[in-house]
Amino acid sequence: MPQGQPVAVPNDGLSTRARRNAPLLAVHTGPGKGKSTAAFGMALRAWNAGLDVAVFQFVKSAKWKVGEETAFGHLGRLHAELGVGGAVEWHKMGSGWSWSRKTGSEDDHAAAAADGWAEIARRLAEQRHDFYVLDEFTYPLKWGWVATEEVVEVLGNRLGRQHVVITGRDAPQPLLDAADLVTEMTKIKHPMDAGRKGQRGIEW
Amino acid sequence: MPQGQPVAVPNDGLSTRARRNAPLLAVHTGPGKGKSTAAFGMALRAWNAGLDVAVFQFVKSAKWKVGEETAFGHLGRLHAELGVGGAVEWHKMGSGWSWSRKTGSEDDHAAAAADGWAEIARRLAEQRHDFYVLDEFTYPLKWGWVATEEVVEVLGNRLGRQHVVITGRDAPQPLLDAADLVTEMTKIKHPMDAGRKGQRGIEW
Repeated sequence: MPQGQPVAVPNDGLSTRARRNAPLLAVHTGPGKGKSTAAFGMALRAWNAGLDVAVFQFVKSAKWKVGEETAFGHLGRLHAELGVGGAVEWHKMGSGWSWSRKTGSEDDHAAAAADGWAEIARRLAEQRHDFYVLDEFTYPLKWGWVATEEVVEVLGNRLGRQHVVITGRDAPQPLLDAADLVTEMTKIKHPMDAGRKGQRGIEW
Repeated sequence: MPQGQPVAVPNDGLSTRARRNAPLLAVHTGPGKGKSTAAFGMALRAWNAGLDVAVFQFVKSAKWKVGEETAFGHLGRLHAELGVGGAVEWHKMGSGWSWSRKTGSEDDHAAAAADGWAEIARRLAEQRHDFYVLDEFTYPLKWGWVATEEVVEVLGNRLGRQHVVITGRDAPQPLLDAADLVTEMTKIKHPMDAGRKGQRGIEW
Protein backbone atom coordinates (compact mmCIF):
# COMPACT_ATOMS: atom_id res chain seq x y z
CA MET A 1 0.00 0.00 0.00
CA PRO A 2 1.34 3.46 -0.86
CA GLN A 3 2.21 6.26 1.53
CA GLY A 4 2.94 4.02 4.47
CA GLN A 5 4.16 5.65 7.61
CA PRO A 6 7.45 4.71 9.20
CA VAL A 7 7.13 2.73 12.41
CA ALA A 8 9.61 4.98 14.17
CA VAL A 9 11.42 8.22 13.44
CA PRO A 10 15.14 7.59 13.73
CA ASN A 11 17.42 9.84 15.72
CA ASP A 12 19.77 10.36 12.79
CA GLY A 13 19.79 14.16 12.65
CA LEU A 14 18.15 14.12 9.22
CA SER A 15 15.11 16.16 8.30
CA THR A 16 12.07 14.31 7.01
CA ARG A 17 12.84 15.74 3.60
CA ALA A 18 16.44 14.52 3.69
CA ARG A 19 15.28 11.11 4.83
CA ARG A 20 12.65 10.98 2.10
CA ASN A 21 15.28 11.80 -0.50
CA ALA A 22 17.76 9.18 0.68
CA PRO A 23 18.76 6.99 -2.23
CA LEU A 24 17.58 3.42 -2.08
CA LEU A 25 19.62 0.24 -2.33
CA ALA A 26 17.22 -2.65 -2.93
CA VAL A 27 17.99 -6.35 -3.33
CA HIS A 28 15.54 -8.87 -4.78
CA THR A 29 16.72 -12.34 -3.97
CA GLY A 30 15.39 -15.84 -3.29
CA PRO A 31 14.49 -18.79 -5.51
CA GLY A 32 11.08 -17.54 -6.66
CA LYS A 33 9.99 -15.73 -9.77
CA GLY A 34 9.56 -11.98 -9.93
CA LYS A 35 12.98 -10.72 -8.87
CA SER A 36 13.86 -9.15 -12.21
CA THR A 37 10.25 -8.49 -13.13
CA ALA A 38 9.72 -6.47 -9.96
CA ALA A 39 12.97 -4.59 -10.60
CA PHE A 40 11.80 -3.67 -14.10
CA GLY A 41 8.44 -2.70 -12.60
CA MET A 42 10.28 -0.35 -10.26
CA ALA A 43 12.22 1.00 -13.23
CA LEU A 44 8.92 1.69 -15.00
CA ARG A 45 7.75 3.68 -12.02
CA ALA A 46 11.07 5.54 -11.88
CA TRP A 47 10.87 6.27 -15.61
CA ASN A 48 7.41 7.71 -15.11
CA ALA A 49 8.76 10.00 -12.39
CA GLY A 50 11.29 11.34 -14.91
CA LEU A 51 14.28 9.54 -13.44
CA ASP A 52 17.17 8.61 -15.71
CA VAL A 53 17.08 4.79 -15.83
CA ALA A 54 19.97 2.47 -16.69
CA VAL A 55 19.69 -1.32 -16.78
CA PHE A 56 22.74 -3.59 -16.71
CA GLN A 57 22.01 -7.23 -17.35
CA PHE A 58 24.69 -9.58 -16.11
CA VAL A 59 23.54 -12.43 -18.31
CA LYS A 60 25.76 -14.65 -20.33
CA SER A 61 24.25 -14.24 -23.74
CA ALA A 62 23.35 -11.06 -25.58
CA LYS A 63 21.22 -13.10 -27.92
CA TRP A 64 18.52 -13.26 -25.31
CA LYS A 65 16.32 -10.18 -25.28
CA VAL A 66 13.55 -9.95 -22.75
CA GLY A 67 10.33 -8.17 -23.64
CA GLU A 68 11.13 -5.49 -21.11
CA GLU A 69 14.16 -4.41 -23.13
CA THR A 70 11.98 -3.72 -26.15
CA ALA A 71 9.33 -2.03 -24.04
CA PHE A 72 11.89 0.21 -22.35
CA GLY A 73 13.27 1.02 -25.78
CA HIS A 74 9.85 2.46 -26.62
CA LEU A 75 9.81 4.36 -23.34
CA GLY A 76 13.27 5.75 -23.99
CA ARG A 77 12.15 7.00 -27.40
CA LEU A 78 9.08 8.61 -25.81
CA HIS A 79 11.50 10.51 -23.59
CA ALA A 80 13.86 11.45 -26.39
CA GLU A 81 11.13 12.54 -28.78
CA LEU A 82 8.40 13.91 -26.53
CA GLY A 83 10.14 14.59 -23.24
CA VAL A 84 7.85 12.12 -21.48
CA GLY A 85 9.29 10.19 -18.53
CA GLY A 86 13.02 9.70 -18.11
CA ALA A 87 15.92 8.63 -20.28
CA VAL A 88 16.59 4.90 -20.64
CA GLU A 89 19.78 2.94 -21.29
CA TRP A 90 19.89 -0.86 -21.49
CA HIS A 91 23.17 -2.75 -21.43
CA LYS A 92 23.90 -6.47 -21.59
CA MET A 93 27.01 -8.35 -20.68
CA GLY A 94 26.80 -11.17 -23.18
CA SER A 95 29.25 -10.87 -26.11
CA GLY A 96 30.56 -7.58 -24.78
CA TRP A 97 28.92 -4.55 -23.20
CA SER A 98 27.75 -1.82 -25.54
CA TRP A 99 30.43 0.58 -24.29
CA SER A 100 33.20 -1.96 -24.75
CA ARG A 101 35.19 -2.33 -27.94
CA LYS A 102 35.87 -5.92 -27.10
CA THR A 103 33.46 -8.16 -28.87
CA GLY A 104 33.21 -11.89 -28.82
CA SER A 105 34.20 -11.92 -25.19
CA GLU A 106 31.52 -14.45 -24.39
CA ASP A 107 34.22 -16.90 -23.47
CA ASP A 108 35.41 -14.87 -20.55
CA HIS A 109 32.35 -14.14 -18.46
CA ALA A 110 34.44 -13.29 -15.41
CA ALA A 111 36.30 -10.51 -17.22
CA ALA A 112 33.08 -9.26 -18.78
CA ALA A 113 31.37 -9.11 -15.40
CA ALA A 114 34.32 -7.23 -13.87
CA ASP A 115 34.27 -4.82 -16.81
CA GLY A 116 30.54 -4.26 -16.29
CA TRP A 117 30.96 -3.50 -12.63
CA ALA A 118 33.91 -1.15 -13.29
CA GLU A 119 31.73 0.84 -15.70
CA ILE A 120 28.87 0.99 -13.18
CA ALA A 121 31.29 2.20 -10.49
CA ARG A 122 32.48 4.94 -12.86
CA ARG A 123 28.92 5.99 -13.60
CA LEU A 124 28.05 6.05 -9.90
CA ALA A 125 31.06 8.30 -9.29
CA GLU A 126 29.87 10.60 -12.08
CA GLN A 127 26.26 10.43 -10.83
CA ARG A 128 25.33 9.58 -14.39
CA HIS A 129 21.91 8.01 -13.73
CA ASP A 130 19.14 8.21 -11.15
CA PHE A 131 17.99 4.60 -11.14
CA TYR A 132 20.22 1.60 -11.79
CA VAL A 133 19.07 -1.98 -12.25
CA LEU A 134 21.90 -4.50 -11.83
CA ASP A 135 20.04 -7.54 -13.07
CA GLU A 136 21.37 -10.94 -11.97
CA PHE A 137 24.36 -9.20 -10.45
CA THR A 138 24.41 -11.57 -7.46
CA TYR A 139 25.89 -14.31 -9.63
CA PRO A 140 29.21 -12.57 -10.44
CA LEU A 141 29.43 -11.82 -6.71
CA LYS A 142 28.70 -15.41 -5.77
CA TRP A 143 31.24 -16.75 -8.25
CA GLY A 144 33.92 -14.31 -7.09
CA TRP A 145 34.15 -12.51 -10.43
CA VAL A 146 33.46 -9.22 -8.67
CA ALA A 147 34.49 -8.55 -5.07
CA THR A 148 31.47 -8.14 -2.81
CA GLU A 149 33.42 -5.93 -0.38
CA GLU A 150 34.26 -3.48 -3.16
CA VAL A 151 30.66 -3.39 -4.36
CA VAL A 152 29.40 -2.72 -0.85
CA GLU A 153 31.97 0.03 -0.37
CA VAL A 154 31.25 1.74 -3.69
CA LEU A 155 27.50 1.55 -3.18
CA GLY A 156 27.83 2.77 0.41
CA ASN A 157 29.84 5.79 -0.69
CA ARG A 158 27.81 6.71 -3.74
CA LEU A 159 26.91 10.37 -3.93
CA GLY A 160 23.67 12.17 -4.60
CA ARG A 161 20.40 10.41 -5.03
CA GLN A 162 21.19 7.34 -7.08
CA HIS A 163 18.84 4.41 -6.53
CA VAL A 164 20.20 0.92 -7.14
CA VAL A 165 18.26 -2.34 -7.44
CA ILE A 166 20.17 -5.62 -7.55
CA THR A 167 18.55 -8.94 -8.44
CA GLY A 168 19.53 -12.60 -8.32
CA ARG A 169 19.54 -15.64 -6.09
CA ASP A 170 21.91 -16.11 -3.18
CA ALA A 171 22.73 -12.46 -2.56
CA PRO A 172 25.82 -12.38 -0.31
CA GLN A 173 25.17 -11.37 3.29
CA PRO A 174 27.31 -8.18 3.24
CA LEU A 175 25.15 -6.92 0.36
CA LEU A 176 21.97 -7.71 2.29
CA ASP A 177 23.43 -5.90 5.29
CA ALA A 178 24.14 -2.83 3.17
CA ALA A 179 20.72 -2.80 1.51
CA ASP A 180 17.81 -0.63 2.61
CA LEU A 181 15.20 -2.94 1.13
CA VAL A 182 15.52 -6.69 0.79
CA THR A 183 12.71 -8.80 -0.61
CA GLU A 184 12.96 -12.54 -0.91
CA MET A 185 10.87 -14.12 -3.63
CA THR A 186 9.89 -17.64 -2.62
CA LYS A 187 8.59 -20.16 -5.07
CA ILE A 188 5.44 -21.74 -3.73
CA LYS A 189 4.30 -23.25 -6.99
CA HIS A 190 5.63 -23.00 -10.53
CA PRO A 191 3.98 -24.18 -13.76
CA MET A 192 7.22 -25.79 -14.93
CA ASP A 193 6.88 -28.15 -11.99
CA ALA A 194 3.71 -29.35 -13.67
CA GLY A 195 5.55 -29.90 -16.93
CA ARG A 196 4.48 -26.66 -18.57
CA LYS A 197 6.82 -24.68 -20.76
CA GLY A 198 7.54 -20.98 -20.92
CA GLN A 199 5.58 -18.83 -23.31
CA ARG A 200 6.03 -15.49 -25.03
CA GLY A 201 4.50 -12.58 -23.18
CA ILE A 202 4.75 -14.48 -19.92
CA GLU A 203 8.25 -15.85 -19.58
CA TRP A 204 10.00 -13.42 -21.89
CA MET B 1 16.39 -17.50 -16.11
CA PRO B 2 14.43 -17.74 -19.35
CA GLN B 3 13.61 -20.83 -21.32
CA GLY B 4 13.73 -23.20 -18.41
CA GLN B 5 12.90 -26.78 -19.04
CA PRO B 6 10.10 -28.53 -17.20
CA VAL B 7 11.28 -31.06 -14.67
CA ALA B 8 8.86 -33.65 -15.98
CA VAL B 9 6.51 -34.02 -18.89
CA PRO B 10 3.04 -34.66 -17.52
CA ASN B 11 0.88 -37.46 -18.79
CA ASP B 12 -2.03 -35.12 -19.52
CA GLY B 13 -2.61 -35.94 -23.18
CA LEU B 14 -1.65 -32.41 -24.23
CA SER B 15 0.83 -31.60 -26.95
CA THR B 16 3.84 -29.46 -26.05
CA ARG B 17 2.25 -26.67 -28.03
CA ALA B 18 -1.05 -26.95 -26.17
CA ARG B 19 0.78 -27.03 -22.87
CA ARG B 20 2.86 -24.03 -23.84
CA ASN B 21 -0.27 -22.11 -24.74
CA ALA B 22 -2.09 -22.93 -21.52
CA PRO B 23 -3.27 -19.73 -19.89
CA LEU B 24 -1.57 -18.84 -16.64
CA LEU B 25 -3.15 -18.08 -13.29
CA ALA B 26 -0.51 -16.46 -11.10
CA VAL B 27 -0.80 -15.25 -7.52
CA HIS B 28 1.69 -12.89 -5.86
CA THR B 29 1.17 -12.97 -2.13
CA GLY B 30 3.09 -12.56 1.11
CA PRO B 31 3.98 -9.56 3.29
CA GLY B 32 6.91 -8.30 1.21
CA LYS B 33 7.16 -5.61 -1.41
CA GLY B 34 7.01 -6.32 -5.11
CA LYS B 35 3.69 -8.15 -5.45
CA SER B 36 2.00 -5.44 -7.54
CA THR B 37 5.27 -4.22 -9.02
CA ALA B 38 6.07 -7.67 -10.37
CA ALA B 39 2.51 -7.99 -11.71
CA PHE B 40 2.88 -4.70 -13.58
CA GLY B 41 6.28 -5.87 -14.79
CA MET B 42 4.60 -8.99 -16.18
CA ALA B 43 1.97 -6.76 -17.79
CA LEU B 44 4.76 -4.77 -19.43
CA ARG B 45 6.16 -7.95 -20.90
CA ALA B 46 2.68 -9.03 -22.04
CA TRP B 47 2.09 -5.61 -23.60
CA ASN B 48 5.35 -5.94 -25.50
CA ALA B 49 4.19 -9.32 -26.85
CA GLY B 50 1.08 -7.61 -28.24
CA LEU B 51 -1.29 -8.99 -25.63
CA ASP B 52 -4.40 -7.00 -24.71
CA VAL B 53 -3.79 -5.93 -21.09
CA ALA B 54 -6.42 -4.93 -18.53
CA VAL B 55 -5.62 -3.87 -14.98
CA PHE B 56 -8.25 -3.81 -12.23
CA GLN B 57 -7.13 -2.18 -9.02
CA PHE B 58 -9.18 -3.15 -6.00
CA VAL B 59 -8.05 -0.19 -3.95
CA LYS B 60 -10.26 1.99 -1.85
CA SER B 61 -9.49 5.36 -3.31
CA ALA B 62 -9.42 6.46 -6.92
CA LYS B 63 -7.46 9.53 -5.91
CA TRP B 64 -4.35 7.44 -5.68
CA LYS B 65 -2.64 6.98 -9.00
CA VAL B 66 0.50 4.91 -9.17
CA GLY B 67 3.21 5.78 -11.65
CA GLU B 68 2.52 2.57 -13.51
CA GLU B 69 -0.95 3.79 -14.44
CA THR B 70 0.51 6.82 -16.16
CA ALA B 71 3.24 4.76 -17.80
CA PHE B 72 0.72 2.22 -19.11
CA GLY B 73 -1.36 5.12 -20.39
CA HIS B 74 1.61 6.05 -22.59
CA LEU B 75 1.99 2.44 -23.69
CA GLY B 76 -1.71 2.20 -24.53
CA ARG B 77 -1.42 5.31 -26.70
CA LEU B 78 1.63 3.83 -28.44
CA HIS B 79 -0.57 0.89 -29.32
CA ALA B 80 -3.53 3.02 -30.42
CA GLU B 81 -1.46 5.42 -32.50
CA LEU B 82 1.41 3.31 -33.80
CA GLY B 83 0.23 -0.27 -33.40
CA VAL B 84 3.11 -1.01 -31.04
CA GLY B 85 2.54 -3.55 -28.29
CA GLY B 86 -0.95 -4.38 -27.05
CA ALA B 87 -4.02 -2.44 -25.97
CA VAL B 88 -4.19 -1.28 -22.35
CA GLU B 89 -7.13 -0.62 -20.04
CA TRP B 90 -6.72 0.49 -16.44
CA HIS B 91 -9.63 0.44 -14.02
CA LYS B 92 -9.84 1.41 -10.37
CA MET B 93 -12.44 0.56 -7.80
CA GLY B 94 -12.32 3.71 -5.68
CA SER B 95 -15.30 6.05 -6.21
CA GLY B 96 -16.79 3.78 -8.81
CA TRP B 97 -15.32 1.74 -11.63
CA SER B 98 -14.98 3.47 -14.98
CA TRP B 99 -17.70 1.26 -16.54
CA SER B 100 -20.13 1.95 -13.70
CA ARG B 101 -22.62 4.79 -13.72
CA LYS B 102 -22.62 4.79 -9.94
CA THR B 103 -20.25 7.40 -8.64
CA GLY B 104 -19.48 8.36 -5.11
CA SER B 105 -19.78 4.74 -4.07
CA GLU B 106 -16.66 5.00 -1.99
CA ASP B 107 -18.74 4.35 1.08
CA ASP B 108 -19.63 0.85 0.00
CA HIS B 109 -16.40 -0.88 -0.78
CA ALA B 110 -17.98 -4.30 -0.53
CA ALA B 111 -20.54 -3.52 -3.25
CA ALA B 112 -17.87 -1.88 -5.39
CA ALA B 113 -15.61 -4.93 -5.09
CA ALA B 114 -18.47 -7.27 -6.00
CA ASP B 115 -19.30 -5.05 -8.97
CA GLY B 116 -15.66 -5.15 -10.08
CA TRP B 117 -15.50 -8.90 -9.91
CA ALA B 118 -18.82 -9.28 -11.78
CA GLU B 119 -17.43 -7.17 -14.62
CA ILE B 120 -14.21 -9.19 -14.71
CA ALA B 121 -16.26 -12.42 -14.84
CA ARG B 122 -18.25 -11.01 -17.78
CA ARG B 123 -15.07 -10.06 -19.59
CA LEU B 124 -13.54 -13.47 -18.99
CA ALA B 125 -16.68 -15.06 -20.46
CA GLU B 126 -16.36 -12.80 -23.51
CA GLN B 127 -12.59 -13.43 -23.72
CA ARG B 128 -12.23 -9.67 -23.86
CA HIS B 129 -8.57 -9.43 -22.83
CA ASP B 130 -5.41 -11.55 -22.96
CA PHE B 131 -3.78 -10.50 -19.72
CA TYR B 132 -5.64 -9.45 -16.57
CA VAL B 133 -4.09 -7.95 -13.46
CA LEU B 134 -6.42 -8.13 -10.44
CA ASP B 135 -4.40 -5.92 -8.14
CA GLU B 136 -5.00 -6.32 -4.39
CA PHE B 137 -7.88 -8.64 -5.18
CA THR B 138 -7.05 -10.93 -2.25
CA TYR B 139 -8.49 -8.36 0.18
CA PRO B 140 -12.12 -8.51 -1.08
CA LEU B 141 -11.75 -12.29 -0.93
CA LYS B 142 -10.36 -12.20 2.59
CA TRP B 143 -13.09 -9.86 3.77
CA GLY B 144 -15.83 -11.95 2.18
CA TRP B 145 -16.93 -9.22 -0.23
CA VAL B 146 -16.40 -11.62 -3.12
CA ALA B 147 -16.86 -15.40 -2.75
CA THR B 148 -13.57 -17.22 -3.21
CA GLU B 149 -15.35 -20.38 -4.43
CA GLU B 150 -17.02 -18.44 -7.23
CA VAL B 151 -13.75 -16.81 -8.24
CA VAL B 152 -11.96 -20.15 -8.34
CA GLU B 153 -14.78 -21.66 -10.40
CA VAL B 154 -14.93 -18.80 -12.92
CA LEU B 155 -11.15 -18.73 -13.29
CA GLY B 156 -11.00 -22.50 -13.61
CA ASN B 157 -13.58 -22.50 -16.38
CA ARG B 158 -12.28 -19.50 -18.30
CA LEU B 159 -11.98 -20.10 -22.02
CA GLY B 160 -9.22 -19.44 -24.49
CA ARG B 161 -5.85 -18.15 -23.48
CA GLN B 162 -6.55 -15.53 -20.86
CA HIS B 163 -3.75 -15.00 -18.36
CA VAL B 164 -4.68 -13.73 -14.90
CA VAL B 165 -2.39 -12.35 -12.21
CA ILE B 166 -3.80 -11.70 -8.73
CA THR B 167 -1.91 -9.78 -6.05
CA GLY B 168 -2.31 -9.13 -2.34
CA ARG B 169 -1.48 -10.53 1.07
CA ASP B 170 -3.20 -13.52 2.60
CA ALA B 171 -4.39 -15.15 -0.60
CA PRO B 172 -7.00 -17.76 0.37
CA GLN B 173 -5.88 -21.37 0.09
CA PRO B 174 -8.42 -22.41 -2.60
CA LEU B 175 -7.02 -19.66 -4.83
CA LEU B 176 -3.46 -20.87 -4.22
CA ASP B 177 -4.59 -24.41 -5.02
CA ALA B 178 -6.09 -23.24 -8.30
CA ALA B 179 -3.07 -21.17 -9.33
CA ASP B 180 -0.36 -22.36 -11.70
CA LEU B 181 2.25 -19.99 -10.30
CA VAL B 182 2.41 -18.77 -6.73
CA THR B 183 5.18 -16.50 -5.51
CA GLU B 184 5.42 -15.31 -1.96
CA MET B 185 7.17 -12.02 -1.41
CA THR B 186 8.82 -11.99 1.99
CA LYS B 187 10.02 -8.82 3.62
CA ILE B 188 13.55 -9.25 4.86
CA LYS B 189 14.28 -5.58 5.40
CA HIS B 190 12.31 -2.47 4.60
CA PRO B 191 13.46 1.16 4.69
CA MET B 192 10.31 2.23 6.58
CA ASP B 193 11.55 0.06 9.43
CA ALA B 194 14.50 2.42 9.60
CA GLY B 195 12.17 5.41 9.74
CA ARG B 196 12.45 6.34 6.07
CA LYS B 197 9.49 7.57 4.12
CA GLY B 198 8.22 6.70 0.68
CA GLN B 199 9.40 8.74 -2.27
CA ARG B 200 8.19 9.52 -5.74
CA GLY B 201 9.64 7.24 -8.40
CA ILE B 202 10.22 4.55 -5.83
CA GLU B 203 7.08 4.06 -3.79
CA TRP B 204 4.62 5.46 -6.33
